[in-house]
Amino acid sequence: MAQYKQVIGVRKDLNIRRGKEIAQGAHASRGACSRANPDIIKNWEHQGQTKIVVGVATENKLVEVYNKAESGDVPVYLVKDAGHTELEPGTRTAFAVGPARVEKVDKYTGNLSLL
Amino acid sequence: MAQYKQVIGVRKDLNIRRGKEIAQGAHASRGACSRANPDIIKNWEHQGQTKIVVGVATENKLVEVYNKAESGDVPVYLVKDAGHTELEPGTRTAFAVGPARVEKVDKYTGNLSLL
Repeated sequence: MAQYKQVIGVRKDLNIRRGKEIAQGAHASRGACSRANPDIIKNWEHQGQTKIVVGVATENKLVEVYNKAESGDVPVYLVKDAGHTELEPGTRTAFAVGPARVEKVDKYTGNLSLL
Repeated sequence: MAQYKQVIGVRKDLNIRRGKEIAQGAHASRGACSRANPDIIKNWEHQGQTKIVVGVATENKLVEVYNKAESGDVPVYLVKDAGHTELEPGTRTAFAVGPARVEKVDKYTGNLSLL
């Protein structure tokens, strides 16, 4: 059976609280899940819903990876912070790619390092 | 209109990678969302899906808060890590309470500090 995963990319240059960073990652994960095929979600959950979190050096890099994945055939989501605390409104903080087949996700995120 | 939020509790004593910590939080968030009333999810999303991440000192404290919330009228989820990396299988790492009305969530998590 095909293996599925989700990769969550979080900016390393934000200097925000750990908790806020976790919230950004959760937001990204949920956003991409809501755009995924329900059958793929089911398979992914059945396999333990693998979530891999990688670090992204800058906002430009974050958007670059997001844009490439967004033009492909994987569910993607880009988090823009509301700016209530710590960050300016609209700051792009994180993305998620997948759940989708491992090899499809790796096409966009394979170069990024584990956070 | 009622205000909704989700609180994600993450253990502070785990000493795991930042990325793994983010994955635990995302897992908790998603788990509790899947148990929430769809109308409440809609309202919460409309309000910006507030997610507050708090720190929990120990596994015992994590389970204690989870058990109290679980016996109440809020959606809750407790993450048990599969133990593929860094942790023993079954280690309880994080919970999420809500989305639910702010005052209901605070009943269980109001004593915990922002992470």
